[in-house]
Amino acid sequence: MPKVVVDVMPKPEILDPQGKAVLGALPRLGFTGVSEVRQGKRFELEVEGEVTEEVRARIEHLAATLLSNPVIESYAVHVEGEPA
Amino acid sequence: MPKVVVDVMPKPEILDPQGKAVLGALPRLGFTGVSEVRQGKRFELEVEGEVTEEVRARIEHLAATLLSNPVIESYAVHVEGEPA
Repeated sequence: MPKVVVDVMPKPEILDPQGKAVLGALPRLGFTGVSEVRQGKRFELEVEGEVTEEVRARIEHLAATLLSNPVIESYAVHVEGEPA
Repeated sequence: MPKVVVDVMPKPEILDPQGKAVLGALPRLGFTGVSEVRQGKRFELEVEGEVTEEVRARIEHLAATLLSNPVIESYAVHVEGEPA
């Protein structure tokens, strides 16, 4: 069954405390060379049948309403296997 | 600056209540044709300099220790722009 991926990330101007916590933990773990960490969500939706343009449009709508908060988050929809 | 993405998803045999909640909400929103939803996490790491094999190996190690719980989650590391 085709899988559609929705990536939801906090917008760049929004504070991301979880990402900051990870970033702060890195040097304590002896890990250098990372300047920024952002944490978001990944949804994998298994779709019945083919991913037509119409299905894709409906998932885009879903991503904008149920899966993300468009005030503070941005989202990206792609079919697994296709480049994001 | 190159961006490395770490996707962390609950393993297939692990119950995913957040994904189930999204799946349950879809018909109420008039959305059909989705048979399964899994919710995981997406981390975006900005790396200073080039993503060498060594940097990649260290991020893999990080994904396995700090970013995921390997008992219940699987992870995938890829450089943004490259296929996952």
